[in-house]
Amino acid sequence: MAGLGAIGLLHARHLARQLCGARLACVVDQDRALAEAIGSELGSPFSAFFETALEDARVTAVVIATPSPLHAEMVGQAVRAGKHVFCEKPLSLDVASGERAAALADAAGVILQVGFQRRFDADFVEARRLIGADELGAVLLLRISHRNRIPPHDGPLERRFGSPFVDMTIHDFDTALWLAGPVAEVSAFASADSTLAVVRFESGALGVIDNTRRAGYGFECAAELVGSRLTLRIGDGARASRVERLTAAGALTRLAADYIERHRAAYLEELRHFVACVHSGTAPAVGGAEANAALALALTAERCAA
Amino acid sequence: MAGLGAIGLLHARHLARQLCGARLACVVDQDRALAEAIGSELGSPFSAFFETALEDARVTAVVIATPSPLHAEMVGQAVRAGKHVFCEKPLSLDVASGERAAALADAAGVILQVGFQRRFDADFVEARRLIGADELGAVLLLRISHRNRIPPHDGPLERRFGSPFVDMTIHDFDTALWLAGPVAEVSAFASADSTLAVVRFESGALGVIDNTRRAGYGFECAAELVGSRLTLRIGDGARASRVERLTAAGALTRLAADYIERHRAAYLEELRHFVACVHSGTAPAVGGAEANAALALALTAERCAA
Amino acid sequence: MAGLGAIGLLHARHLARQLCGARLACVVDQDRALAEAIGSELGSPFSAFFETALEDARVTAVVIATPSPLHAEMVGQAVRAGKHVFCEKPLSLDVASGERAAALADAAGVILQVGFQRRFDADFVEARRLIGADELGAVLLLRISHRNRIPPHDGPLERRFGSPFVDMTIHDFDTALWLAGPVAEVSAFASADSTLAVVRFESGALGVIDNTRRAGYGFECAAELVGSRLTLRIGDGARASRVERLTAAGALTRLAADYIERHRAAYLEELRHFVACVHSGTAPAVGGAEANAALALALTAERCAA
Amino acid sequence: MAGLGAIGLLHARHLARQLCGARLACVVDQDRALAEAIGSELGSPFSAFFETALEDARVTAVVIATPSPLHAEMVGQAVRAGKHVFCEKPLSLDVASGERAAALADAAGVILQVGFQRRFDADFVEARRLIGADELGAVLLLRISHRNRIPPHDGPLERRFGSPFVDMTIHDFDTALWLAGPVAEVSAFASADSTLAVVRFESGALGVIDNTRRAGYGFECAAELVGSRLTLRIGDGARASRVERLTAAGALTRLAADYIERHRAAYLEELRHFVACVHSGTAPAVGGAEANAALALALTAERCAA
Repeated sequence: MAGLGAIGLLHARHLARQLCGARLACVVDQDRALAEAIGSELGSPFSAFFETALEDARVTAVVIATPSPLHAEMVGQAVRAGKHVFCEKPLSLDVASGERAAALADAAGVILQVGFQRRFDADFVEARRLIGADELGAVLLLRISHRNRIPPHDGPLERRFGSPFVDMTIHDFDTALWLAGPVAEVSAFASADSTLAVVRFESGALGVIDNTRRAGYGFECAAELVGSRLTLRIGDGARASRVERLTAAGALTRLAADYIERHRAAYLEELRHFVACVHSGTAPAVGGAEANAALALALTAERCAA
Repeated sequence: MAGLGAIGLLHARHLARQLCGARLACVVDQDRALAEAIGSELGSPFSAFFETALEDARVTAVVIATPSPLHAEMVGQAVRAGKHVFCEKPLSLDVASGERAAALADAAGVILQVGFQRRFDADFVEARRLIGADELGAVLLLRISHRNRIPPHDGPLERRFGSPFVDMTIHDFDTALWLAGPVAEVSAFASADSTLAVVRFESGALGVIDNTRRAGYGFECAAELVGSRLTLRIGDGARASRVERLTAAGALTRLAADYIERHRAAYLEELRHFVACVHSGTAPAVGGAEANAALALALTAERCAA
Repeated sequence: MAGLGAIGLLHARHLARQLCGARLACVVDQDRALAEAIGSELGSPFSAFFETALEDARVTAVVIATPSPLHAEMVGQAVRAGKHVFCEKPLSLDVASGERAAALADAAGVILQVGFQRRFDADFVEARRLIGADELGAVLLLRISHRNRIPPHDGPLERRFGSPFVDMTIHDFDTALWLAGPVAEVSAFASADSTLAVVRFESGALGVIDNTRRAGYGFECAAELVGSRLTLRIGDGARASRVERLTAAGALTRLAADYIERHRAAYLEELRHFVACVHSGTAPAVGGAEANAALALALTAERCAA
Repeated sequence: MAGLGAIGLLHARHLARQLCGARLACVVDQDRALAEAIGSELGSPFSAFFETALEDARVTAVVIATPSPLHAEMVGQAVRAGKHVFCEKPLSLDVASGERAAALADAAGVILQVGFQRRFDADFVEARRLIGADELGAVLLLRISHRNRIPPHDGPLERRFGSPFVDMTIHDFDTALWLAGPVAEVSAFASADSTLAVVRFESGALGVIDNTRRAGYGFECAAELVGSRLTLRIGDGARASRVERLTAAGALTRLAADYIERHRAAYLEELRHFVACVHSGTAPAVGGAEANAALALALTAERCAA
């Protein structure tokens, strides 16, 4: 487990406590004290150096959750060391690096899975199933609303994670490709707080993705697909609970504070899928090709909105 | 229009402004100043005396919304004066008076309608239609939750409106009879704040009605019918609006503050129905028989819970 | 009442039966048989000629609900005859005609109201009130989803009502201006079934409007405003009822079939407002200026999407 | 793992695949072929005899999910063999046996946990937390609606699981005690399809529990607590998903088919809690005392309704 930020910690804990088919061999973070603390919490060895884990023959696979600019290079290192790789999105910040990483994994015959957890979210999986069963007919319109309560990484270094299109909307581009097929055109618009991406699918359908980085209320992940036969809505806004509190002020329901709260089960499932693919040798559902396709759209949107 | 409390005012304004087939001939309240103020607001004559209206040959019908203990007697007066009568619930506080009033109206050939407005609420009407179309199959269970945010009439004189069973649960007994048929048995339980009534229908189905007089959050009027083929739910709690306000505290929706806010349209529709019945001579959907049936159940519950 | 299509019939019935402060003096439709039938139903005189109503001195105001291309000219006729005018949207199909009609009404000192009924919808009014009370803080993002189940006017003559932007999205442009202020830029995209309009407000906020003309499921009219302090959502999709039907297939709720079902109360309120303005001489909330502002955005969008 | 019916299978799979701190040492079922098949699926030894597992020194704890009449005796056997015990509800079918089993576990110093999984359901846990934080003020009314789509065990042997009060309502009695405190009185009513239990809490509050064994639509587990300061509602009916399918027929959402689908996470959590208690020696949150208190209420209700 390389990288112990919020997502890295989540993955590490899932590996240690909830995925019985995997053993957490080592937690790595350049912050040695953090690595030691987490290693202690999870009962696993630790290191400040990724190379240490790569040199360990007992390590079969690595999970990379370091800052985005480091991903492509670390994937290359891991693949050359013969390790299977689960890499958090984005696989890379430029398409060439992403394609190189995917090719290296292919050539080395190792599994490369990228962390688009929404593909493992029960509601989105149900939507994909209904589409695959042709229940919608032709998709006419796709709408995705994706918002963070507060920016996940802030401050002067934020831009090293890529533009909002690459850091955030990339999830929505992947979802759009997954649910509605190849994209022919992308247009994009940005303000200080929000972005809008408009896509025209090869099918002729239209799609719109709205993102807000500081929505203030909770984590929003809603989608709609208007089809010729049926319309699908993944709704409930950011609701996190069935519990309503009723007072004279109104009926109040808790909202998911962030993407971890909303997608906790999906984060577990994507790792469960990775572990199963490593054991069985099957190609994962979301790999380099998917990551690069989504990145290409994100970079096109970034250029358009500039 | 006799009686200018909250409900009386509502009826008066509906008559004056929204029911074009009726003309508000007189507003009456023992509080002469109030009668004058409302008469002025609505552009209608006023009086402190019910008899004045009864003696006026141009008055075709009366709407009675005075305190409950006065209803039966005033209905008798109006009927003897040859007026059609819309009487707020309850028609009476004892069955004998209610049956007498109904018989008098019958004999005089005038319309007698009683104010069970829920029978004109769009959602309950839709439920009744589905039941009548046999979509539910056999009704197995009925549940009604009916709550006021604060008691509608409070203080030392509250009990003159009858027990909570007669003043409040009577609506639910009428709904139960209307939706699920004749009742064979009633059991009831009361606490300082709430009542529970359990009914066994002649069909064998069970029913439960919970009322709270000071729920604190809003006006609740929810119902469920579990049927052998389909279950109906009239839900949404006390929600008054499609507007949600989302903040880090949660998603907040306004609630109906009282029965007027929740049933405003139904209050208008029941008067519209009354006016139409007066014009056409048709018997109203809710009259003395329905009122007395509901009262009988309410009084049985009251004795049981004592 | 000129024009007895779906909307015209609705207005005529509201005027005749629900607006006690107005008398339906004449129903007009070029289809004489239809005019006669409706006149008979509503107990009003009828004619096949607009001029007949204009020449009648007892006629104070006219409601125009004829096909869109006729609006501007008929408004001019009515205004020159000294009648107050309620004109269904759009006021005109080109800005010059719309400005001319507004100027004529101004000069003649008559009321001109345009039928943007959403401005009288309880939920949108509540939203506007919260915005006006500064509860949202700065608006960051506006999203509107507006869909018809089936196209309201179909067939070879459909395009005479104007492009989808002028016929349908014009409501959303008016809502956008009303809720989030002046618009600096418009971009638009169209497919065979849907349109997307992206606006950039003078405030810097972004807005996106998605329309589908044949959504197939019901009439959709949802909106969201993400604000710096609070997010507003007008949701519930196209739900028309509190009644849920539960079976092993799922929980089913009825949807509004069309804009009349969804906005019936708003259609009544906007006419009630018009009648009140005619009586009091106050300028209506939605007049020529609003209509022309929305049309300008619609035409810009139309050109952009071509 | 003793007993491989629906619940037993669920527990077995959780133990084998999701609870890394436990090893599934043996699956037991009187149906040897079933035990073999499951043992094979989960990679664990199997037996047709409970004694075999009890005699195995490596077995630390047992999970009992055999038919209800066998529970108390098997708990006794396991406790005497020095094993910790997780026993599905009900602990026993009569209070004396339940108290004996609890006393034996106490004396032997082993953990005894009983399977009231709702105590581990996220929504109910949230409700309990709000109550514990005194957010509701005084509880005035409790309402629970608990329904099965189809009876979990059917046919001539159904009654060996106890009356519906002991088999099904026992969950609701446990929830009532957990959320609203000790009960002073119980009244109950039964029909062929449903039961109603009315409780009066020592606090003076009222409670009503409605159960239907063949509701037909899905698994229902809803609750409301009306408090003097705030009302809590655990709602959403039996909704199983955020996905809505919209067609002209309406908006359709999937419902939980049974208690396993609705409470899957809670079933896992209660076993996770048991494993943690076995490791740490802490008393479990739900043990013999809780089970016997709920059973006492269920048996009182059963006698009352007869």
